[in-house]
Amino acid sequence: MNDFLDPKRTVAELKELRALTGDDDGAQRVAFTETWAKARKWMEGKMAELPVEAHKDAAGNSWFTLKGTSEKSLLIGGHIDSVPNGGWLDGCLNVVAGVEVMRRICSEYGGNPPVTVRVVDWADEEGARFGKSLFGSAAFSGNLDLDEARVLKDKDGISLPDAVAGYGIDFEKVKDAGIEAKNAAAYLELHIEQGPVLLDMDLPLGAVLGTFGVERHAITFRGQAAHSGSTPMNRRKDAFLAAARMAPEIYDITGRHGGVCTIGSCVTKPGIVTSVVAECRITLDQRHLDAESLAQMLGEAKSASERYAADGGVTVEWERLWQIEPVLFNPELIDFCDAAILETCGVSHRLPSGPLHDAAEVSRAGIPTVMLFVQSLHGISHNKIEDTREDHLELCVKALDCLASKTMEWILRDE
Amino acid sequence: MNDFLDPKRTVAELKELRALTGDDDGAQRVAFTETWAKARKWMEGKMAELPVEAHKDAAGNSWFTLKGTSEKSLLIGGHIDSVPNGGWLDGCLNVVAGVEVMRRICSEYGGNPPVTVRVVDWADEEGARFGKSLFGSAAFSGNLDLDEARVLKDKDGISLPDAVAGYGIDFEKVKDAGIEAKNAAAYLELHIEQGPVLLDMDLPLGAVLGTFGVERHAITFRGQAAHSGSTPMNRRKDAFLAAARMAPEIYDITGRHGGVCTIGSCVTKPGIVTSVVAECRITLDQRHLDAESLAQMLGEAKSASERYAADGGVTVEWERLWQIEPVLFNPELIDFCDAAILETCGVSHRLPSGPLHDAAEVSRAGIPTVMLFVQSLHGISHNKIEDTREDHLELCVKALDCLASKTMEWILRDE
Repeated sequence: MNDFLDPKRTVAELKELRALTGDDDGAQRVAFTETWAKARKWMEGKMAELPVEAHKDAAGNSWFTLKGTSEKSLLIGGHIDSVPNGGWLDGCLNVVAGVEVMRRICSEYGGNPPVTVRVVDWADEEGARFGKSLFGSAAFSGNLDLDEARVLKDKDGISLPDAVAGYGIDFEKVKDAGIEAKNAAAYLELHIEQGPVLLDMDLPLGAVLGTFGVERHAITFRGQAAHSGSTPMNRRKDAFLAAARMAPEIYDITGRHGGVCTIGSCVTKPGIVTSVVAECRITLDQRHLDAESLAQMLGEAKSASERYAADGGVTVEWERLWQIEPVLFNPELIDFCDAAILETCGVSHRLPSGPLHDAAEVSRAGIPTVMLFVQSLHGISHNKIEDTREDHLELCVKALDCLASKTMEWILRDE
Repeated sequence: MNDFLDPKRTVAELKELRALTGDDDGAQRVAFTETWAKARKWMEGKMAELPVEAHKDAAGNSWFTLKGTSEKSLLIGGHIDSVPNGGWLDGCLNVVAGVEVMRRICSEYGGNPPVTVRVVDWADEEGARFGKSLFGSAAFSGNLDLDEARVLKDKDGISLPDAVAGYGIDFEKVKDAGIEAKNAAAYLELHIEQGPVLLDMDLPLGAVLGTFGVERHAITFRGQAAHSGSTPMNRRKDAFLAAARMAPEIYDITGRHGGVCTIGSCVTKPGIVTSVVAECRITLDQRHLDAESLAQMLGEAKSASERYAADGGVTVEWERLWQIEPVLFNPELIDFCDAAILETCGVSHRLPSGPLHDAAEVSRAGIPTVMLFVQSLHGISHNKIEDTREDHLELCVKALDCLASKTMEWILRDE
């Protein structure tokens, strides 16, 4: 235990931020809005009490740097932005806990730690306004697709380049944020789990192995509209029947391979009570930490869809909506994370992350990365009922701090 | 064979009506529109060549009466209205063939048949403009729900009462059409099958046993929205999974009981690629000629939905959208119809009607009723590709005429 760390202060500050930027419907810190700007100003105020240099990079990511003896840097990152009506912890827990860890390091080393320590608040992790997540961290990693992002518009028709200009960002230069990767030796990110795995195991904390790869497709079955009264069952070309058979199938697929699959949307045409469905479009989201397993899951879903289509005399067509490969975090940092958790609360668990996080982009930029999860009370996120027990919040701050110490030692050893 | 009947003339007149009231997209005789009025005027012109009295009743049904020695009346009915972009035969075949049968009877009996013969063109069978079918025949039978119909509006916001007023109909008095049932002794209706049963059996004509009873419901499954990446499969409350399992189930149900079942629409909420489906609403249309079987089918669908809901940790709620009991046609008239078909083309088949027809309302009014089906080339209706072979059209006019003769003899015997 470090005497300088005050995890209860983190909990109090999280409540302070909630009061400042939330309402009865939840957190309202949508990126590139006034409430978000207010939250960032609040964060800058906290950091202003420490001997750290603060600036925003070309993509609007907010950096706070405590210079150390070595230029090699330990990064601790998160995002203060939220979805509309979001949870009070998703995103901001990481940066607020980062402030506390920075305080401890400042105190312990009298403002001059052996390695440089930086806290980063990524700009627009959620993508709530423009439908494109990981804006700031993808600009940093160089993976942001400028052509795709350039044409995005919010619901009022305002383009992403115009909106970010209002926050001092020149859209065409956002990838200059990559310069911040210089000397970065490790990246740590604490996050609420957003799922029920730790809750079900009754564990407060977990070490994250990486983020799932994602295969996201639209699948369209095409049959024949026909009168619901006059068409015998054996004469139907029922697009809904073929699509519906995919629902249990995706549970069978995950039963064999692990990972997760979701049919999130089903649209029927003509979609009237008196006609057999002529066209049925479903979306399928498949995720796995192992690239080969993900490819097998995709292959099996395609085979099944073709089998059900053939059985039902309909056709099937696949359209890829999006994909990303699995991102595996750094094995040594995972070990440190596990050890930090064990030292903090005596029991740990390693688990993958289903949702994407800024950490995935940082890892893709070649920086050794790990994430630390804290239990989510309802297993729910992006919702005002999102919550974590206060004693668990305190534990996660302690574990992040312990992980930061272990990682600083590792960076020093590596020099 | 009757020398006065000219079935080729019926085919020619159907083509004449198509040219007058159709376009490249199909028939456009939507009830309570100018094109419909034009079609009815054309029909009146044909009837004006015969010694028949013509008038419209309180619901806008168009009656053509050839007075006979007995006041007991044989009714031959159909509807000249169509859906938008409809088939060239659905509806008008009945009345155009009725004109030809009326001509033959006039000729044969020198304008004074032994029983009165009436042709009726029902107003708005399709319900295309206001979404309510069988308007005229339901007013005639007394089954029209005035409170429901009074508030119906078309897509331009014009109410049904206002629209029918433009065609000389006082909405509040439409049920006065019931007076036309006086002395009605039998009702015959010829119609294109609208399904593939006769096509599959390679038969030109069929005798119709009755119209299916219908149970129409919306079924809503409610689970829990959850992140597609972070929610393990065994923790999901997937409303789409439960609903999708109903798709093969309805095929199993009809496999056991006969009849038809259709899931025509599926709507998912939130309906996004990254969330497990929280709410899934499907529509189920079940039809059977036997009331008890229909009730069993409904019961089995309800049980299955509850089983799948319980299996998946979701709830299910049923909402009845509409129902109608099966209507069984008159057994003696079915026998006459069968005999008339056999005399016409040597082979017959008895089959139920999946779609509703004006004949169902006439039968519910207590008038002995039967329908005669002619083969539909693609098994398709409500579509411009709807078609019937010309030799089959000629056969159906002959069979209707033969059935009319047998029915007139039956009415006379009954006196």
